[in-house]
Amino acid sequence: MIVSWVTPLEDQPKFVSYWEAVDEKKGIKRSHARAITTTYRYYNYSSGYIHHATIKRLKYDTKYIYELGKGNGTRQFWFTTPPEVGPDVPYTFGIIGDLGQTQASNQTLEHYLACGKGQTMLFLGDFSYADAHPFHDNEKWDTFGRFIEKSSAYEPWIYTAGNHELDLAPEIGEQVLFKPYKHRYHVPFRASGSTSPLWYSIKRASTHIIVLSSYSAFSIYTPQYRWLKQELPKVNRSETPWLIVLMHSPMYNSNNYHYMEGETMRVVFEPWFVKYKVDLVLAGHVHSYERSERVSNIQYNITEGISSPVKDPSAPVYLTVGDGGNIEGIADSFIEHQPSYSAFREASFGHALLQIKNRTHAFYSWHRNQDNVPIAGDSIWFYNRYWFPNEETCTNA
Amino acid sequence: MIVSWVTPLEDQPKFVSYWEAVDEKKGIKRSHARAITTTYRYYNYSSGYIHHATIKRLKYDTKYIYELGKGNGTRQFWFTTPPEVGPDVPYTFGIIGDLGQTQASNQTLEHYLACGKGQTMLFLGDFSYADAHPFHDNEKWDTFGRFIEKSSAYEPWIYTAGNHELDLAPEIGEQVLFKPYKHRYHVPFRASGSTSPLWYSIKRASTHIIVLSSYSAFSIYTPQYRWLKQELPKVNRSETPWLIVLMHSPMYNSNNYHYMEGETMRVVFEPWFVKYKVDLVLAGHVHSYERSERVSNIQYNITEGISSPVKDPSAPVYLTVGDGGNIEGIADSFIEHQPSYSAFREASFGHALLQIKNRTHAFYSWHRNQDNVPIAGDSIWFYNRYWFPNEETCTNA
Repeated sequence: MIVSWVTPLEDQPKFVSYWEAVDEKKGIKRSHARAITTTYRYYNYSSGYIHHATIKRLKYDTKYIYELGKGNGTRQFWFTTPPEVGPDVPYTFGIIGDLGQTQASNQTLEHYLACGKGQTMLFLGDFSYADAHPFHDNEKWDTFGRFIEKSSAYEPWIYTAGNHELDLAPEIGEQVLFKPYKHRYHVPFRASGSTSPLWYSIKRASTHIIVLSSYSAFSIYTPQYRWLKQELPKVNRSETPWLIVLMHSPMYNSNNYHYMEGETMRVVFEPWFVKYKVDLVLAGHVHSYERSERVSNIQYNITEGISSPVKDPSAPVYLTVGDGGNIEGIADSFIEHQPSYSAFREASFGHALLQIKNRTHAFYSWHRNQDNVPIAGDSIWFYNRYWFPNEETCTNA
Repeated sequence: MIVSWVTPLEDQPKFVSYWEAVDEKKGIKRSHARAITTTYRYYNYSSGYIHHATIKRLKYDTKYIYELGKGNGTRQFWFTTPPEVGPDVPYTFGIIGDLGQTQASNQTLEHYLACGKGQTMLFLGDFSYADAHPFHDNEKWDTFGRFIEKSSAYEPWIYTAGNHELDLAPEIGEQVLFKPYKHRYHVPFRASGSTSPLWYSIKRASTHIIVLSSYSAFSIYTPQYRWLKQELPKVNRSETPWLIVLMHSPMYNSNNYHYMEGETMRVVFEPWFVKYKVDLVLAGHVHSYERSERVSNIQYNITEGISSPVKDPSAPVYLTVGDGGNIEGIADSFIEHQPSYSAFREASFGHALLQIKNRTHAFYSWHRNQDNVPIAGDSIWFYNRYWFPNEETCTNA
């Protein structure tokens, strides 16, 4: 578990102390994990002291209390560790993309928290939208951290980098890509043999999660390509039956916003997604919601000229959940006549939930902000592509 | 003019001295340009002292003598500066890709030098093939520098990075991409507003040359995409009528080697190449020779499913000149039945020449190593897409 926090002053404890919640009453045996501490400057902004402490050797499926700071500034939080990895371990993921920190963003996060089911958040990129403010006002990265604390301090978030994390601004001398993001959000990329925090994998319960970077190099011979090529054959579907890929820019999107921006990655990675029977590909970027059919467009060949997506039981379902709240408004212009690859699409703010039940079944639902908590705007039972590759039928009313 | 050289010892002059060749007899007035000096380590290799001196304020179209070193180690070379930029200035480019340092490599370079017409080399990437040797034996970068000296010390080379310049080897702790390449080959990228030596532009005579990187990020929002997007509208066809793009991985290639590897860049940049009427796109990578028809495949639309390249008078001709010599042998397996986008293809080692005559006409020829110097294996008059966008007909016998 990586615990990250920011302090305005350096003279603060650079460690997290933690203990099992069940020990709360019988005299606390505290453990400590030291943080690595970093700071950065961005144009006229100087960050606080950003601390990242990795806590190792935790018990599975166990609630821990953890404490940061000292004196009057002491704060307590808790998390529950994931269960041991296994093929039929049930687990529920929250899914949010393009969150931002608007009123809609707040509704999305509150709505997600009100359902109370999520155990780990799959976050699909575009965090604070600091870059939409003058000089990429990095105070917005601070306020965003405070905004998501009500979730991210209590359950793990798995992070994907979006275009609003690039923070490229040569006009003010800022040319280091992903600078605020990389300083603030640490991910355990080395554990999966990755050389960059922008692409990595995590095994969680019955799921193998792969995170990719839409805005790094991914053509053949590049580090991301090489990493994914050696990662996919390592996925053990007997251990983690569910294989889920996260990226920011969707490969299948029938919205006029960002239409076909994902093509450049699709033509490289889609054949592997089909070969390795990826269950789901989650993306954000388009400020709307869309669920694809199981389709592939891998028979395309520049010499032959065939290029239509076709139904393919080995293909993933592509989910675009870019409707977290953002700052630019909803993407409400879909391509007229819903293409055959698109199964469901709607321009509403919301979030999604993926409830893995066992190695064969997972219940997926998408929740509009304006609906009551239990209501799903779209829902479907997904069948595992490795263990039960049957055709799914939508359960929407 | 950037003069680059390597010295084994630090105790050597870190400047280049130079003078006009016409002054040779009437008492030499030497000028000096200071170098910046760098070194690098790569696994168990330590480089010599690599010097790069930028000489400014040279006269146009003038022969200069330049001198490096001291005492018995003094060496003299010469170069001729390019003529002033102008729409009808004739100029001849050499074109070589995937050179390497094999016997075939030597034949290619000697054959090119024997023709004696080239004024600037457009080099399409894959230099030393050091990475094909154990631990990427960086001595091969040294021997390659000595090998091309007979050309590169006397005429400017414009460099493109290929996959063999990546030198990514995490297994021996080498994770900095393009490390030897960036230390050894300096390009004037800042002059064109680029933030990376991997993409930049140069105006030369009547030509605007744009160099791209196939192995860096190029999807929307990335630095390379942003740079190219602002670069293309700046091209002034009244000043430089010819617009030529260099990259390593070809966008149109009907060889089974590396087939469709360039698709991921094609889907991003091809619409711009057609919009801005790029005359020629030069690539290497495939160890063979190919010339395309003027085709585009930009009507492709994932929703509509149309995807065949069609004749397009606004499209570039795509030239693959990856047959410099390499180390892996010739790529002699073409896709059966030559596709309609392919105009000419042949698996022979060689080089090409592009002789710009004026704003409308340029004579292009490809020369097999085994032929006598004046013989062209393929040749065609290219008509400028901006000033004279007529259809070209091949002049091959």
